[in-house]
Amino acid sequence: MTGITPSRRVRRTHFTDFVEAAGVKSYTVYNHMLLPSSFEGIEADYHHLKRHVQVWDVSCERQVQVKGSDAMRLIQMLTPRDISSLSTKKCMYIPVVDQNGGMLNDPVLIAAGSDTFWISIADSDFLLWVLAVAACNGLDVEVEEPDVSPLAVQGPKSGLLMERVFGARVNGLRFFECGRFEFHGDHMLVSRSGYSRQGGFEIYLENPKLAEPLWESLFKMGEDLQVRAGCPNLIERIEGGLLSYGNDMTRENSPLECGFEKFVSESLLDHCFGGRVLRKELDAGIKRKIRPVSIEGELPPCDRAWPLYAKGLRAGQVTSAARSPDHGTNVAIGMMSREFWDAGSALEVETQAGMRRAVVKASFWE
Amino acid sequence: MTGITPSRRVRRTHFTDFVEAAGVKSYTVYNHMLLPSSFEGIEADYHHLKRHVQVWDVSCERQVQVKGSDAMRLIQMLTPRDISSLSTKKCMYIPVVDQNGGMLNDPVLIAAGSDTFWISIADSDFLLWVLAVAACNGLDVEVEEPDVSPLAVQGPKSGLLMERVFGARVNGLRFFECGRFEFHGDHMLVSRSGYSRQGGFEIYLENPKLAEPLWESLFKMGEDLQVRAGCPNLIERIEGGLLSYGNDMTRENSPLECGFEKFVSESLLDHCFGGRVLRKELDAGIKRKIRPVSIEGELPPCDRAWPLYAKGLRAGQVTSAARSPDHGTNVAIGMMSREFWDAGSALEVETQAGMRRAVVKASFWE
Repeated sequence: MTGITPSRRVRRTHFTDFVEAAGVKSYTVYNHMLLPSSFEGIEADYHHLKRHVQVWDVSCERQVQVKGSDAMRLIQMLTPRDISSLSTKKCMYIPVVDQNGGMLNDPVLIAAGSDTFWISIADSDFLLWVLAVAACNGLDVEVEEPDVSPLAVQGPKSGLLMERVFGARVNGLRFFECGRFEFHGDHMLVSRSGYSRQGGFEIYLENPKLAEPLWESLFKMGEDLQVRAGCPNLIERIEGGLLSYGNDMTRENSPLECGFEKFVSESLLDHCFGGRVLRKELDAGIKRKIRPVSIEGELPPCDRAWPLYAKGLRAGQVTSAARSPDHGTNVAIGMMSREFWDAGSALEVETQAGMRRAVVKASFWE
Repeated sequence: MTGITPSRRVRRTHFTDFVEAAGVKSYTVYNHMLLPSSFEGIEADYHHLKRHVQVWDVSCERQVQVKGSDAMRLIQMLTPRDISSLSTKKCMYIPVVDQNGGMLNDPVLIAAGSDTFWISIADSDFLLWVLAVAACNGLDVEVEEPDVSPLAVQGPKSGLLMERVFGARVNGLRFFECGRFEFHGDHMLVSRSGYSRQGGFEIYLENPKLAEPLWESLFKMGEDLQVRAGCPNLIERIEGGLLSYGNDMTRENSPLECGFEKFVSESLLDHCFGGRVLRKELDAGIKRKIRPVSIEGELPPCDRAWPLYAKGLRAGQVTSAARSPDHGTNVAIGMMSREFWDAGSALEVETQAGMRRAVVKASFWE
C-alpha cells in the first residue's frame, strides 16, 4: 500500500495520538483531516464491529456552525427537507443541494443550542457554500467551523459501554435522538447515530482537554466488552446500504437519484436552492437510482467508478464494492438507469481487472 | 509510514497509472484527488529536481470554470486584485477572500477562451463558493469543474524538454505567460509556471486520450536529460518560499498576512468580498506576516502548527519545515507577530519532539 505523507494541511485530530497508539494501519483523508480506514485489517475489523464495540475517531465529520437570529432561515434555504420540527432532542439528516439540483453534501443537522446549529458534514467544504449564501443574502448569522470532534461508539455492545461512561439515561436515546450528558464536569452532546448498522452513538467533543479522559474511560470501562479502536468499515457499510458522499453520490447526482425522496418537501421547492430543478425531475420521473448490486468473482479495490452494462447497453455504474465474508459474495452499491434497476437484472461490470457478472438485488444485506 | 486506502472519493487522475508504474512511494490528498508526494525519497527527488527535469501529475490543481457574459464581473467580486488586464496570453495569481477577510484559496486565473475562465485552485472546494455567489446574484454564468488535468514539467532542463515536445516557440514564454501549443493535432494550453523555483511549465490536459501520448513523449524526448517522474518537493518549495494553502495559510489568515499586499487594490475594496475588513487591517497595520525561519537540530515531520516563542512570549507558529541538504539547516515557513518578525529574532519552536532553537531570516533561500 502506498504511504500517506504527513503535513499540517492533512489535519491530525485530538484523537490521532491514541489512534496511532492503537495501531492504525491505513488512513483516508476526509475534510482535510485524517480518518482511519483500518486497524487489524478490513475483514478482522468487520467481524469485531459486528460482535463487540468499537471507538471511532470521526473528528473529520466537521461541523459547519450557523449561529444567529437568521440561522434557521438560512439553513432552510440549503435543503429541500422541512426542518421546522428540529429540536435539541432530535437531529435530522438533510440533503443539501446546489442551484442545479446536485448534491453538495449529505450532512446531519443538530440544534446545539437555542440559536446555534451544527451541520455535521460529509467530505466537501460545505462551509464555503454556507458562508457565501450568508454573505450574499445579508443574513444575521455567523458561520464557522468550531473545534468540535465527533467520536463514535459503534457495535452491538455500544449501549452497554455508553451506559457505563455516561449513565443509564444515554441508552434511552432512540435513533437520531440526542441530548447532553455529563462527563468530567462537562455536558457533552451525544446522539444515537453513526455510520454503521450495528447500533451506536456519536459524542461531540468540544473541550479538547477531555479527549484523553474520554478515550481512556471508554477503553477502561469496555475492557470486558472487548472494546477496541475502529473506523467506518467498507464492507459493513455497503452491506447496510450506507451511502458515502464522494463515492456513491457527487454533485452530478440529485437527492432524488440517491433515494432521498422522503427528504424532499414539494412545498419548499420554490424557496430552496435547486428546487425548480428537483420539481422538473419529479415531474419527468427519476431517471436513475442507487441500488444494491451483487458481483461475482475476485475484485480489485473499487477506486474508480466501474461502468455497468446490460445486454451491451450502458446501465449505470458501481461506486463502492467489497467482498462480504458473511454473505459470501461481493456486496456493492451502484447507480442504475431506470430500465435496469429492477431486482434480478443481470449485468456486467467493468473493473480495472476485467469484466465481472453482477445482479441487482431487491434490498441491501444489513 | 501509514498507508492510504483506495476509494473512488479520493480520485485517481488520468496520469495515476503512469505515476504508479514510475514507482510513486507516497501520496497526499489534494482536492479529493491523489497527489504524489515522493518517488525515490524526498531528498533524492530534491537533488534531481534541482539538476534535471521532472514530470509532475498535478491534476489535483482542479479548475473552477466560469463561463458566460458575467464571468469577469463574477470573478472580480471574488478577489481584491484588479483582473482587468487579464488576457489569453498571461495568467494571474489571485488571492480569494471571504466576507471576513480570510483566504479561501490562492488560485491562478487563466483566460481559457473569450468568455471562459479557469480558476486553477489550491486545496479547498472553492467551486462551492463560486457556485453560491453565482446563484445568489443571478449572474449569467455557468460554473463547473471541467475535466482538465495539469501536468507540470519542472527543473532547469524543462525548457529544453518542452521545446522538443511543443516546438521552440514554447520556450519563448516568460513567467506566467501562456498560450496554445500543438500536440497530436490538439492545441494544448501551456503556461510558464509551476510549484517550484527551478523553472518550468504547466500543460493543461483537456482530452484524456492524450494523457498517455503526452506522458510518453515527455519521457522519450527527455531520456538524455534524465527526465523522471516527480512531484512538488517539500524541501525545495520551502527554500523558495512557495506557500501552501492549508499549511502556511488558512481561512484564519488575510491576504495581507500572507504577503499579498501587491495583489490588494485599494480601489476594489468596496466591491469585493472581505474588502472592508482588509481596509480596516491596512489602516490598523498588519499584525502578523509570513517569514522564513531557520531551525536547529533534528526535526520530526511538521504535521501540525508548531508554536513559536521569543523570551517566553508567543511569537507565532511554524507551518512547514524540512531539512535542507543544500543549506545545512532546517528551512521553515512561519507566521510571525509584528514584534518578532524582524530578521535575526531569536526564537524557540515547540515541536512534538521537543523545543528547538530558531531564527527569523531576512529572505527565503531560493
